[in-house]
Amino acid sequence: MNDSAAPVAGKTGLEFALLAEDGPARRGLITTAHGPVKTPAFMTVGTAGTVKGMTTEQVQASGAEIILGNTYHLMLRPGAERVARLGGLHRFMNWPGPILTDSGGYQVMSLQELRKITEEGVTFRSHLDGERHNLTPERAMEIQALLDSNITMVLDECTPFPATETEARESMERSMRWAARCRAAFTQRPGYGLFGIVQGGVYPALRRTSAEALIEIGFDGYAVGGLAVGEGQEAMFDVLDATIPHLPRAQPRYLMGIGKPADIVGAVQRGIDMFDCVLPTRSGRTGQAFTRRGSINLRNARHQEDQRPLDPDCPCPSCSDYSRAYLHHLFKAKEMLGPILLTRHNLHYYQELMAGLRQAIEDQRLDDFVAGFARQEAEGDIAAL
Amino acid sequence: MNDSAAPVAGKTGLEFALLAEDGPARRGLITTAHGPVKTPAFMTVGTAGTVKGMTTEQVQASGAEIILGNTYHLMLRPGAERVARLGGLHRFMNWPGPILTDSGGYQVMSLQELRKITEEGVTFRSHLDGERHNLTPERAMEIQALLDSNITMVLDECTPFPATETEARESMERSMRWAARCRAAFTQRPGYGLFGIVQGGVYPALRRTSAEALIEIGFDGYAVGGLAVGEGQEAMFDVLDATIPHLPRAQPRYLMGIGKPADIVGAVQRGIDMFDCVLPTRSGRTGQAFTRRGSINLRNARHQEDQRPLDPDCPCPSCSDYSRAYLHHLFKAKEMLGPILLTRHNLHYYQELMAGLRQAIEDQRLDDFVAGFARQEAEGDIAAL
Repeated sequence: MNDSAAPVAGKTGLEFALLAEDGPARRGLITTAHGPVKTPAFMTVGTAGTVKGMTTEQVQASGAEIILGNTYHLMLRPGAERVARLGGLHRFMNWPGPILTDSGGYQVMSLQELRKITEEGVTFRSHLDGERHNLTPERAMEIQALLDSNITMVLDECTPFPATETEARESMERSMRWAARCRAAFTQRPGYGLFGIVQGGVYPALRRTSAEALIEIGFDGYAVGGLAVGEGQEAMFDVLDATIPHLPRAQPRYLMGIGKPADIVGAVQRGIDMFDCVLPTRSGRTGQAFTRRGSINLRNARHQEDQRPLDPDCPCPSCSDYSRAYLHHLFKAKEMLGPILLTRHNLHYYQELMAGLRQAIEDQRLDDFVAGFARQEAEGDIAAL
Repeated sequence: MNDSAAPVAGKTGLEFALLAEDGPARRGLITTAHGPVKTPAFMTVGTAGTVKGMTTEQVQASGAEIILGNTYHLMLRPGAERVARLGGLHRFMNWPGPILTDSGGYQVMSLQELRKITEEGVTFRSHLDGERHNLTPERAMEIQALLDSNITMVLDECTPFPATETEARESMERSMRWAARCRAAFTQRPGYGLFGIVQGGVYPALRRTSAEALIEIGFDGYAVGGLAVGEGQEAMFDVLDATIPHLPRAQPRYLMGIGKPADIVGAVQRGIDMFDCVLPTRSGRTGQAFTRRGSINLRNARHQEDQRPLDPDCPCPSCSDYSRAYLHHLFKAKEMLGPILLTRHNLHYYQELMAGLRQAIEDQRLDDFVAGFARQEAEGDIAAL
């Protein structure tokens, strides 16, 4: 397995090499202007120009190759033009590797009270100072270019859940018109790419229509959006089963905002290449740790004199250097180091999971890996002392 | 200069080697069971079993050799007996180097409402759960032994400021009786030591009496206490001038709870060997940075597009990898990484200052160093862009 493929000079867009397949699951390599990304990949979320509580050295040490930045937060503070004047997001936040940015649409549209959607785009008031902002497909492309994002996402309308088929169709069709405007406004550069987003709610026919419309426009990668909005794992997998067969084999596929470890494992089995989720960072701040034997809450009193590591099979420094008792103490005492150590562990856990999935696909033993993953997670935490 | 002196087997107490002198200032080496400490030394404060926001690797990378733990906080949570069952404070918090603990008295006595002082000791209610606790000289020794502290501090009464000479004498005399009880209750071990604390307010005669009383009892080191309580730098230096000549030359001297960079420099000139203070950590959490050109507030809007490092002469990663504009953004956005990066810088700043002082004493050019320090600090921050 050779991951050292250099960016191909003179090419526009992103390179994606498909290195191995195991059933629908794929092992690939995306090459960006800021370095390679082994897939399946988990993108650590760095909302406002920082992965909360982590230095970029710690993020790199976890095994992460690519992070996600939130356009909504960055456009409001410090502002896309300011980030550009400061040399772009990589330099600003000291992250030399690839960055994907979302379009800002999801956050704007979740602020139900403060926004108005028209064919032109969405207008909203900043939650910081009440100032009015417009986000159009063209402005979303401009902002992400100012941030110097390696993978730009189209602006789409996030269809609410539940939605009738008519609502989901109208929303999807608008997203497809916006996707065409994004493609037209996006400036191609070698090592940079634009991804389209499949919408259509839980309706298989709409998902297929959406995928075909995006392929007609042509993108560097295809995301599946509008999930993780309350539909549940089974419905989510059903949408993937209805969508992925209609996506091109030769380009990366990104499942947005997903998810729990078991969600990721199931989506990789179905042929997804990229993921992002706030779970490892957000959970880390509240005392929840992901382990090979499921998730555990460090605030629980059962850990208060437990000298064992969080996860004995985890090579991360939070597991090799600290006890559960110490982590429990930090969370009880509301010490910053608790969220720091637990976030670091969770990031390692997610990256180890992805590395395991990649290796299993290379070795053509993904089914065994998934069975072992499910068995171990079902065991539950080690017995209390 | 050879700092590699190994602990002397079979000896009890702490070894202190005086390696160089420049006027009253001293360059020394304390050898503890958990390693050496070059003096003059700044002890980073790790209140509740953690230097707030820092991994112990980051604390070590700053150049810190010894940290300070707060008995008051640790006795209440997680509790001294629990820390002992978990292998002692070094193991609990993953700090392999030397640890000094205070006696808990200062924090107990600052809780004016909740405590009662008698000849026996002090009783107080926990600020966490209202439970009643007793802290006597004997219990203070027991707790610090349970924590496995390398340098144990006697329990003393923190004399309020201002205090009349009579108040200061009575308080000091009680502290001296408690010091004798501490000495009697302390179990000697090689590489572990007990420090007495000189009290006496701002009254030179009382300070001398206190120093002589402690020397009569005999300690491994001598602290100057009861300062940094509002008396100001001039009065503090006056107390040092009245106290230090009465302390033994062959043992370390510790100025408790001090202080600003200029306080430390002046105290080193007067012959102090050890310091601790929350300033670098606490200031780091609120956006204040110490630099060679004085302290600056990163929240100030002048930094919002300033791509220059915090302190161009600082080798710490927060200065080499990040801009003022980015640090400003983190504090405006209330991101954890702001306190983390700034605390790390401030710890480096303090340790670099101590390293500079040590080198200057070795080179017999402390006066030049101090003049350069004062000149640079008086220049103030670099001009805004």
